[in-house]
This record gives sequence, structure tokens and C-alpha cells, in this order.
Amino acid sequence: MEPVSAAVSAVLPAGGSGERLGGATPKQFCGLQGRPLVSYAVRAMERVSWISDIIVVVSPENIETMKSIVEKYGHKRVTVVKGGITRHRSIFNGLKVFAENQSSNRLLQKPEVVIIHDAVRPFVEEDILLKVVTAAKEHGAAGAIRPLVSTVIASGEDGCLDHSLERARYRASEMPQAFLFDVIYEAYQQCTDHDLDYGTECLHLALKYCKTNAKLVEGTADLWKVTYKRDLYAAESIIKDNLSQQICIITDLKEAVAQVGFLLHESLKSQVKVEAISISLRKNDSHLQNIFSGECYNFLCINDKEYATEEIQQLVDMLEKSNIPLLYPVILILVHLSISENISFSIGLEELTKIKKFAREVKKKNILVYGLLIQCKEKKKKPLETTRKRKYNA
Amino acid sequence: MEPVSAAVSAVLPAGGSGERLGGATPKQFCGLQGRPLVSYAVRAMERVSWISDIIVVVSPENIETMKSIVEKYGHKRVTVVKGGITRHRSIFNGLKVFAENQSSNRLLQKPEVVIIHDAVRPFVEEDILLKVVTAAKEHGAAGAIRPLVSTVIASGEDGCLDHSLERARYRASEMPQAFLFDVIYEAYQQCTDHDLDYGTECLHLALKYCKTNAKLVEGTADLWKVTYKRDLYAAESIIKDNLSQQICIITDLKEAVAQVGFLLHESLKSQVKVEAISISLRKNDSHLQNIFSGECYNFLCINDKEYATEEIQQLVDMLEKSNIPLLYPVILILVHLSISENISFSIGLEELTKIKKFAREVKKKNILVYGLLIQCKEKKKKPLETTRKRKYNA
Repeated sequence: MEPVSAAVSAVLPAGGSGERLGGATPKQFCGLQGRPLVSYAVRAMERVSWISDIIVVVSPENIETMKSIVEKYGHKRVTVVKGGITRHRSIFNGLKVFAENQSSNRLLQKPEVVIIHDAVRPFVEEDILLKVVTAAKEHGAAGAIRPLVSTVIASGEDGCLDHSLERARYRASEMPQAFLFDVIYEAYQQCTDHDLDYGTECLHLALKYCKTNAKLVEGTADLWKVTYKRDLYAAESIIKDNLSQQICIITDLKEAVAQVGFLLHESLKSQVKVEAISISLRKNDSHLQNIFSGECYNFLCINDKEYATEEIQQLVDMLEKSNIPLLYPVILILVHLSISENISFSIGLEELTKIKKFAREVKKKNILVYGLLIQCKEKKKKPLETTRKRKYNA
Repeated sequence: MEPVSAAVSAVLPAGGSGERLGGATPKQFCGLQGRPLVSYAVRAMERVSWISDIIVVVSPENIETMKSIVEKYGHKRVTVVKGGITRHRSIFNGLKVFAENQSSNRLLQKPEVVIIHDAVRPFVEEDILLKVVTAAKEHGAAGAIRPLVSTVIASGEDGCLDHSLERARYRASEMPQAFLFDVIYEAYQQCTDHDLDYGTECLHLALKYCKTNAKLVEGTADLWKVTYKRDLYAAESIIKDNLSQQICIITDLKEAVAQVGFLLHESLKSQVKVEAISISLRKNDSHLQNIFSGECYNFLCINDKEYATEEIQQLVDMLEKSNIPLLYPVILILVHLSISENISFSIGLEELTKIKKFAREVKKKNILVYGLLIQCKEKKKKPLETTRKRKYNA
């Protein structure tokens, strides 16, 4: 697929009251693993480098809540906008930020294509965003769809079945959707108060007022909308699942160490999602920060330095600074690679004791440190062939 | 609502392959807290005393699996029937058991009303079953409906939006449904192979072939169908939630003890689901067995006997015999009520040591035993006013 060649921004209506959830907190502010749902949706947008601005539209009473979420989780490129009394009015308000110079907000650069997504659909991937944006650029409008789970029926005035729809002909309209900005903005300017108050479908407005037939794009199952309490349960389980299935391999820049990292990456990637980076942990790397905010909770650090605790201390410091909620244990596995002709352990007993002590200490912070020592002879040039292993853990 | 005055049986199609779940095990056989999903749906039917027979229709390769589930979880009134290649053919096979003398099955009593429900909708309550059965008796057919979560759209041949449906006019057709047996059986006999192979909606068949307009009954959110992996997560969380929010108070038959149980019931029932029963634990009570199979995992036993361990041993034995999966800890709180004029503890230190030892032992079986001693003066006639408390736990 072609890279995106248009200026793209996103509007996330997050003004819902969450009444179907049966709780006092609107669902977009419900915490999943300690982080509000809306923050996951914002993060999903933020990870996509070609999305310029992210407009989050919330009801007036939640402006401050939303601003504090943006601050707490370090969201970038986000503008919080006051919503209207219905979903359509909120989206319209979000779009106005690009088109009208409002006193309370700076005027943002008008995008060529605007994505509309929901704050309560936390698992949107770059792939589907790219698909709807590309289709919108060509057709003027595009939206993700899914097969219907249940048959849809029309009821008569007597509360009896009037007819049932042929399931294969119909689809559920989901999010994300994307529009040429001028198309959707024109549609909102043209549409009636009745549309703004009772309508639900942006694609419908584009068709009705701009004669723009939206291209429909088959989406994945994880685009579903968190609607009921059971959906919160499901979302939380998916997040936990993702956490346990992601691992970040960190190596320093030395060739032999980076090579072990590469080999590990190759052998693990069929089972878990692996990110491998080569950096010096002494530096505050922005890529590593992104991985933290991506809520990767498993780290494998490979180095050949004599003083392993310093290294791991850096990582723990960065983890703490990154403000990720540590409700779930973070696992740090420190692999000390010792490559030498000498078969004896190059890491001292003193160092081992230090690591053990360190592991006990950070365990209180819900960070579990484990250590693995791999010793191999340099001559053989096979760094993964371990001749002796020694484990030191908490 | 009137009690049911018709002979009612149920058919549960459970022949799906669960391909949308992305796993090898069909979803109806996936374990939730160690028990297969289909067993929850069967249990939901079984709990309703006015449902005579429960027909579970499974694909030929799963007949033995289903029979072993029926045996393992002690399901009663269940007949396992071989399904067809589509949902409609499976339901038709299920209905034939009542109408045709098949060599492999005994002929069951033909019901006046038949419920059709799904094996993958585990949380159906008696209330909605009663509503659809009552409506079916009057109208010939009835089905549960829910509001649409997403807008439904029709796509044109070009893959673009043709039109979107006005959400308020349409509903999602869910389960359970109920029919006069003669109506739905006639519909299945009349319908075409195309209906049997490509149709999805039983209400539609009743309308098309018997001119029976189904009454639509608004259902609750928990009727949803387990379709995707996230739905399994959600169902499991709901089950866990239910487990932690149910408590069974067991008292023996003595007045003072039963009274404490009653008062506890009154004060707890606003916070948790409480079942209170007065029985002697020496007897193998069938009501208590039902509570076990209802997967209540919290028990509060109140007695004034001198030898408390015997009492609690009975309960542990019954729990073990009941075959409920103990993946989740069962909590037994033993309340020893001592009513006497004498303020000294009537339970001996020896007994206390015994209970502690017992608690340690059953902890390995995932049963957590706690004890609470309440001592009150008889003269005051206020058994809940405790003058001294002493706790003994594991």
C-alpha cells in the first residue's frame, strides 16, 4: 500500500454519557489497567506518524478531566474541544477547529483528509486507518464495515415482526471513517437540526448533502465499540493479553551483543510481538519512551558490561519516569553475555549480590527483575552456543 | 406474570464450528472457569423447572464430547441429537425428536411450545424465557430483540454505500425464541433447501410458511451471542463477577441460629446475591447441590454446635462430590454462635487447633476456610449483639 500523501488529522468524539454501561463514569473515562479507555484510543492515533492533529471532543463538564488525561499520559498533538449535546454536534465542533478561528483555540492547519474515530474503540490499527484514508482521498468518503452478528429485523407498529433483512446484503457500519475535509464539513454545514439531533451516521450525511458515496472497507473484529460493561471486561482482557505477548529486546551497540539480540528476535517473533532496539541505556531514548507508552511490559536487556545493575537501574528509572501504570508486573530480564576465551565467570559474586538486592527492592514497585548469565568462548564465533549458564534471580 | 400453563421444551443448536473465534475448539466447547460454554447454557435451561426436555444438537463428531459434558456436570433432562450441516438443519433435527420415532432416540413428549436458544448465549434468565413462551402461546411465535449497536448499511455492487437504515426502526434479532411446536415444525417441513442452507432466522420461516407474525420481546444486554474471542473474555469475566457476588448462608434448623442467618441475609442482600437455607449439613441436601452447580463459591455456615470441624467437613465433602471446577477459590466462613449465660468461650482450644489444621489442609484444594466465633448472652435475647468476638482462620 502507498504511503499517505495527504495532510491528515483526526477527530475523536468522546462526549457520550455511557448510559448503556450502567455506571456513573462515562465509558470513555473508565479505567482499563489503570488507564482511561479514551487514552488507549488517543494513543492508537498518536502512534501513527502521518496523523497531524488529534481533536478529542468531550462534554463541557469533562474538559478538565480530559486535559489532565492528556497531561498524565503525555499525549502529544491533542487538542481538547468542547462538545455539543449530540454526537453529530460534537463532531461538527471538532471539525470547526480546523475551519473557524475560535477564541478559545488556536486555528489548526486544515487537513486534506479527516479521520473520524470513536474514543471507545481502543484497538484501531494503522493498517485500517491507512485503508480508509486512502479510500477517502479517492472517493471523498470511506468507512470501516463488519459483517452483522445478528439478523436485523424491522418491527411493525403492533410490536410484531414486519420483515427480516437478508443478512448477506447488509453490514454494520463501524469506525474509523475518513472524509475529504471539505466534503464532511460542507455536509455538516448543510444538514438540518434534525440530522444533527437524531442522525447517527456520518457517511449518510456525506451522501445526502454532498452526493458522495462512501467506499466501504472491511474492518477487523477488534474495531468493535465498547458499549456494555461486558465490553469493558473484554477490552481489559485484550489489553492484558497484548501486554503478555509483547517483548522488547534491548541491546547495546556492540556487534556481538546486537547479534544475539537479532537472533533472539528471529526466534521469538513467531510466538510473541517483538521490538528490538540497539541503544545505550544511559541515554534517554525517545524510541524507548514510545515503547513504554505502548505498554510493553516485558523487557530483555542484553549486554556484556561488567556492571549490570547500572544498566538495569537506568531502565527502571526510565520506566518510572514514563508514568505508565504499573498495575501489571513489568518483567525485566537481564542477560549478561560474557564472551571470552576464559571459561570462568567474569561477573563477580559481589555484582550478583547487588543484582539480587536490587531485584528485591524493585519488586515492591511491581517490577520483576531476573538475570541470566551466558558465557561463551569467543574463538568458536558462535555466541548463542552457551557453554555454561548461571541464573541469578529475585 | 402468569405461571407457564403449557408443556414446554427447548432446543439448543450447538453445531457451530466457531470459525469467527479463530481457535481450533468450537466456541460452545471452550472452557470458561473450567466449564464448557455449552454447559452454562444448558444449566440456564435446567434451572427453569417448567422446561421439560432440553435437546442439544451437535455435529456428529462432537456427540461423544457433548455426552461426556452432560455426564460430568450432571445435566438432567438433556438429549443429545446429531446436527445437520447448517443451523436450520440442526434445529430441524432437534425438533424431529419430538415428532418422529427415530431409531437412535426415544420419542419424547411433544411440547405445546418449544424454545429455541443458542448454546453460545450462556446468561439467559427465567424471566425472558417466560416472556417469549407466553408470547409464543398467544401469537404462535416470539423472539427476543435488542437495539442495534451500530448503524446498519446496505452496500451497492461497487462496494460503496447504497443507503443506511434508520436505526430506530430496526432491531437485532437475538435468542431465545419460542414457537407453538406445530407452527415451527410445519414451517421446517414446508421450507426449501435454500432456506435450510442459507437462511438464518427462525422467525422468518414462521412468517413465510405459516403466516405467523412473531411477537418481539425486548431482551436484556446479557443475551448477546459469544461470537469472537473477546466475547469469551467477557463471558468469563461475567462468570467471575457473579461468583464473587453470590453468597450462600447455611444455618442448621435451630431457631436462634436460623434467626442470625435471616438477619445476615437481610443485611447482605442489598450488596450481594444471597441464598439462605436452613438444613442439617449431615444430610445430602438436593437444594444445596443445586447451589453448588449454580457455582456459588462463597458459603457462610452458622451453627452453635460444639464440634465445628465435623460440620465444615461435611460441606467440603459435598463440594468435592459435586464436581464443580475449583479453579476459583471457594470461601467457607464458619460462624460459631455461642449463646449462653456464661461469658467464657464454649469452644475449646483443641477444637480451634483442629479447625486451623483443617483449613491448612483444604487450602491445597483451593478451598479457603475462615472461622468466626460470636458469643452473646442469652438473657438479653439479642443474638446479634456480640459481646466478645474471636477470630480463628487459616
